[in-house]
Amino acid sequence: DHIFKSGAKWTMCFALGVITAAAAFAVNLGVENISGFKFWATLTLLERGQPVASFLVYALVNCVLIGVSVYVTVNYAPAAAGSGIAEVKSYLNGIDVPGIFLWNTLLVKLLGSVGAVAGGLAVGKEGPFVHAGACLGALISQGGSSSNHFPWFKRFWNDRDRADMVACGAAAGVAAAFRAPVGGVLFALEEMTSWFRNQLLWYAFFTTAVVSVAVRTLMRICSNDKTGSCGFFGAGGFPLYEITEGQENFEFLELLPMLLLGVIGGLLGSCFNHLNALLAGWRKQRLLKYGPRGRLWEGLAAALLTSTVSFLLPMMVACQPCPPDAGEDCPRTDNSHSGNFVSFNCYGARPAYNDLATIFFNTQDDAIRNLFSSQTKNEYGVSTLLTFVVMFFFLAVVSYGVAIPTGLFVPSILCGAAYGRLVGVFVADMRPGTHSIDEGTYALLGAASFLGGCMRMTVATCVMLLELTSNLALLPMMMLVTLVAKAVGDGTGVKPIYESLIDLKQLPYLEPHPHSLMCHITAVEAAGQPAVTFSRVERVGRILEVLRSTAHNGFAVISGSADCEQHIMGIVLRSQLVVLLRTRRCFQPTPFVSEVAGRVAFSYQQSDFVRPISEAQPGIGSLQLSEQEAAMFLDLGPYVNPSYYVVQEDTSLAKVYTLFRSLGLRHLAVIPRASSVVGVITRHDLLGSSLEATCLEQLTLGAGAAG
Amino acid sequence: DHIFKSGAKWTMCFALGVITAAAAFAVNLGVENISGFKFWATLTLLERGQPVASFLVYALVNCVLIGVSVYVTVNYAPAAAGSGIAEVKSYLNGIDVPGIFLWNTLLVKLLGSVGAVAGGLAVGKEGPFVHAGACLGALISQGGSSSNHFPWFKRFWNDRDRADMVACGAAAGVAAAFRAPVGGVLFALEEMTSWFRNQLLWYAFFTTAVVSVAVRTLMRICSNDKTGSCGFFGAGGFPLYEITEGQENFEFLELLPMLLLGVIGGLLGSCFNHLNALLAGWRKQRLLKYGPRGRLWEGLAAALLTSTVSFLLPMMVACQPCPPDAGEDCPRTDNSHSGNFVSFNCYGARPAYNDLATIFFNTQDDAIRNLFSSQTKNEYGVSTLLTFVVMFFFLAVVSYGVAIPTGLFVPSILCGAAYGRLVGVFVADMRPGTHSIDEGTYALLGAASFLGGCMRMTVATCVMLLELTSNLALLPMMMLVTLVAKAVGDGTGVKPIYESLIDLKQLPYLEPHPHSLMCHITAVEAAGQPAVTFSRVERVGRILEVLRSTAHNGFAVISGSADCEQHIMGIVLRSQLVVLLRTRRCFQPTPFVSEVAGRVAFSYQQSDFVRPISEAQPGIGSLQLSEQEAAMFLDLGPYVNPSYYVVQEDTSLAKVYTLFRSLGLRHLAVIPRASSVVGVITRHDLLGSSLEATCLEQLTLGAGAAG
Repeated sequence: DHIFKSGAKWTMCFALGVITAAAAFAVNLGVENISGFKFWATLTLLERGQPVASFLVYALVNCVLIGVSVYVTVNYAPAAAGSGIAEVKSYLNGIDVPGIFLWNTLLVKLLGSVGAVAGGLAVGKEGPFVHAGACLGALISQGGSSSNHFPWFKRFWNDRDRADMVACGAAAGVAAAFRAPVGGVLFALEEMTSWFRNQLLWYAFFTTAVVSVAVRTLMRICSNDKTGSCGFFGAGGFPLYEITEGQENFEFLELLPMLLLGVIGGLLGSCFNHLNALLAGWRKQRLLKYGPRGRLWEGLAAALLTSTVSFLLPMMVACQPCPPDAGEDCPRTDNSHSGNFVSFNCYGARPAYNDLATIFFNTQDDAIRNLFSSQTKNEYGVSTLLTFVVMFFFLAVVSYGVAIPTGLFVPSILCGAAYGRLVGVFVADMRPGTHSIDEGTYALLGAASFLGGCMRMTVATCVMLLELTSNLALLPMMMLVTLVAKAVGDGTGVKPIYESLIDLKQLPYLEPHPHSLMCHITAVEAAGQPAVTFSRVERVGRILEVLRSTAHNGFAVISGSADCEQHIMGIVLRSQLVVLLRTRRCFQPTPFVSEVAGRVAFSYQQSDFVRPISEAQPGIGSLQLSEQEAAMFLDLGPYVNPSYYVVQEDTSLAKVYTLFRSLGLRHLAVIPRASSVVGVITRHDLLGSSLEATCLEQLTLGAGAAG
Repeated sequence: DHIFKSGAKWTMCFALGVITAAAAFAVNLGVENISGFKFWATLTLLERGQPVASFLVYALVNCVLIGVSVYVTVNYAPAAAGSGIAEVKSYLNGIDVPGIFLWNTLLVKLLGSVGAVAGGLAVGKEGPFVHAGACLGALISQGGSSSNHFPWFKRFWNDRDRADMVACGAAAGVAAAFRAPVGGVLFALEEMTSWFRNQLLWYAFFTTAVVSVAVRTLMRICSNDKTGSCGFFGAGGFPLYEITEGQENFEFLELLPMLLLGVIGGLLGSCFNHLNALLAGWRKQRLLKYGPRGRLWEGLAAALLTSTVSFLLPMMVACQPCPPDAGEDCPRTDNSHSGNFVSFNCYGARPAYNDLATIFFNTQDDAIRNLFSSQTKNEYGVSTLLTFVVMFFFLAVVSYGVAIPTGLFVPSILCGAAYGRLVGVFVADMRPGTHSIDEGTYALLGAASFLGGCMRMTVATCVMLLELTSNLALLPMMMLVTLVAKAVGDGTGVKPIYESLIDLKQLPYLEPHPHSLMCHITAVEAAGQPAVTFSRVERVGRILEVLRSTAHNGFAVISGSADCEQHIMGIVLRSQLVVLLRTRRCFQPTPFVSEVAGRVAFSYQQSDFVRPISEAQPGIGSLQLSEQEAAMFLDLGPYVNPSYYVVQEDTSLAKVYTLFRSLGLRHLAVIPRASSVVGVITRHDLLGSSLEATCLEQLTLGAGAAG
């Protein structure tokens, strides 16, 4: 049975990997083809000397795409808005956020992110992939969303297996989005989960390996001999933003500008998080009262703003003459959207390119590739890079909260790459003799710094960028830059972006460390609610009443009456009680413990009591019990969980917190101080050999008692 | 204060990184120069037509190096034998292994591994680096080994900070040995620690980044313009085993041989672990009775065997003519030990090389480079590779248990690379038209498979190999091969190498999952020992007697007398009692609670009670108390820890195990079933906002009570 379950889980991971890869591939194909067509049409019109028509086509396509996405998101799956990483992270911390793991959320997430990215907003599709992957993980392991389960996955209907698959799905999402399998695993580990088990690591690792192989297999279709079989998608790019001839080494003096990048990243990232939180607060206060229509207008406004800025600003910039020793075509030859040196409004006799358009009037993926490009000294002017950083930063702040699936990775990388390249330009200027200094490599360090400052991840960021660029040479510097950015960001007091989103949504997220106040509070002082307890055989009416009047999720069951010796039998969950009341099967007329109750309990299966995720709990609001029923009794004995964690009343809350966080608890019973110790368990009692001895002893005792 | 401590910790990590890097650099320099000289002398004598003298020099140098190393290890630091990874892993699981974190262990570890590796044994220096790094971490954070602390690190004298620094040190060791910073962090995470905290991840990440930068800076000294400033060390190699033109892609049909590699790796790795365990058992039974001299003879025998095999076997092999299109010199020009195509006993007119000598009569690092070398089709014959795999495998099994610092990484990589290349030769033969198949890439996959089968790591293995070879192209395949090897290895039922070593040493290591029997045992049944309790004010004589007669480490203190209401005050540790008895300061004549006791308690500092690591606990064997003193009393009240974890007597042992493992406990009190619940704590009670409310409430209550 254990082997069967384990095999089933590996199979699920395999399926999860393949499906995530296929979904990501489809989204990529959609995005690249739509935006490829958009750019082709716009540029062709522009070449024909029709700038106004060109702009109108560009803006219209963007607005339609964004409008449709917002409409679908707001009306069919509001939980699909945003990146969803904060919600998945909360789920893996032990909080059930409604609506995040449903079929319609998944669908809208995928479609909406096609619209958002193809529509040119300053948002990415990688964050939504993480949510989509997690969602797929939940749906596959549960056989569907909770109200319509497939029946054959019952053994996976528990918190632990579900959380495992959700974490694997998140890893698969990153792996599929960035073609970065190890980065995906580390992202799931460092950013998403609140605990860590080696077993989970291996499942996630397998899933992302499958994703990688599947993505490569799918992409081979596109790089087939018959070219163009995937339209504008082309060969895809593997690694996504490959750096071919980056800087191999660094001088001691370069440490300074590199660490400066870290500081900038930390400050800008925190600034981004702070502005984002302010804007989200404003949205909540002002925009929500206009309802869905408000969100729609907001989306359209963002689309129009982005279109205008990204079209008009490059128009106002003079074209640059092509460098004579450019390794690539300059300007690039066709109006497809890939390649460096974009010709935009350049009509001179000499070959020329528009440097602002090369990064602004382009898909973000291509813009990043162009910023990372090595051996292209002085491709971008200082004013161009500065303009881009400022404008794009604010566009990103505005766009991230729009009611569509929005991701943060690619905008962060782009923004960081731009100011990184800016610093690179200055460094290269200051040491003109040193040929080894490469602006593209500084762009990479800049990207690392912004990610570090905004998300405050370290290992995952570095490994992801490593896999994205396939450039190992400056890894130690990238690590230091990321750490500096993180330290500076933490120093500003602004929270990491996902935690600040969690705060905004007021989710009861448990952070890694206990609050400093907790050392001074005891468990009983913190227990906000007086404990509500049931007797072993309790009146149905009272149970219903308690469920209606309190919001507690766990209740202690006390056996024995007031006169004789009482003790706690265990904990029964709200969800169990709801099921018991709804099914009515186990009501009994007398308040006594009988054997019948035990037999009735066998008619329930473990899976009947599964707590649904993502959907509203089956309530008791609609439940009507007749007076006769309410006067009957319910023997809770068979349903009680006798193994539950407790703390004594004077335990420090910091210890309680550690317990909650390490074991992922949802509630904990506080008991009075014990009067005696019946034993002490040490490590030696937990080893295999002593266990067998214990068992043997028990058996002998049992035999002795029987004989 | 918090900021100061945090800053001090970052500084410590910085120091740890720099020192580890310097130590690793020194060891490398030693190894490369000694073995460089050895190979130069041997090859020069051979060229002059003196094979016997050549062999004698070779064998003598090896025997002397190994002999000295064994002598030093056995006599000055027996804890330095082996890789030490199992011991550090146990320490991070919560077990204090004697002798592993001392100054002499560190020194012998570093010197001994120079001797072992330069002496040509089939062992690596990377495992010992991990132990050395961990040791450095412990020594730096504790200000020295426990008996002679520097006084200024007192705030780090606790289990948690020490464990953090040990984990960082382990990561730094890998980073320094392999120049693989991210791989080091992941190794510490996946293999070494039993728990995981983001904060630790960042410390480890910083440490390895510092290591990387320091190693590069040091290596730049060697690759300076004035060549040869580091003797035979040369430019070092960065990445260590760079693969320049490996296979970029794979056909669908290649999945089969690649997965076959995984299976071979799983089986061979398990076979290695099993043989190793058998041999270690034999050693324990037979060899230990001969004492240090037995260990010395064993080491010399291993050295002689290795020398003979690696010299005579290549002698018996005919030389191969050099391929006309070799990218490198063939045969390599000088008798230094780096470069492909070794000329060994080749005296023909045409340029020729000895393929077995190229991998066998060479340092292991160079042998690996040569096996990984790309675009060198058919450099090695099938029989050569087969001979090498068989002989080297057995040499590795024999050598790993010799009483010197021995590592397993490099031998594993070498062995795996050899059979991987063998499979590569067959695949290339079967599909002769396909030029893309590269034998060197198969060697890489083989190395991944053997590591997976022997150590059963996944993510860390892949990232380390990635950083070692700088070859990202076949990462997904490497992931799958590693996973298959791990699955096959686990399937054989043989434990991973380090866990099997832990078993051999009979350390009470807690594995990640509870034993299946544990669900059927309750806490009170497992508590092997009846609880020994003290009254709050206890007679000194009784305390001494209890400490002498039991081995318990924690004792419950009960307040109140038998007639009035009793309750547990908390837990007092053996180490605290020993200090209290030794200092005698707090003895009092009467068995009553007085204020004096509280004042005396202030004369102790937290650091006085620190449990020493790695050295014997300060015992009470030598402690002599006069009868008068024994009749006095001790008020334990001020020393009791009132916040301790408890479980109720009927809690399932599986839950207890989870508690032990998640929180790293050493002992746990089992209390009787509670009779009532005084409160329930939920997540909401633990959030910052509710905490402040609770505190306010407490203050108001306090004021009310006071007023």
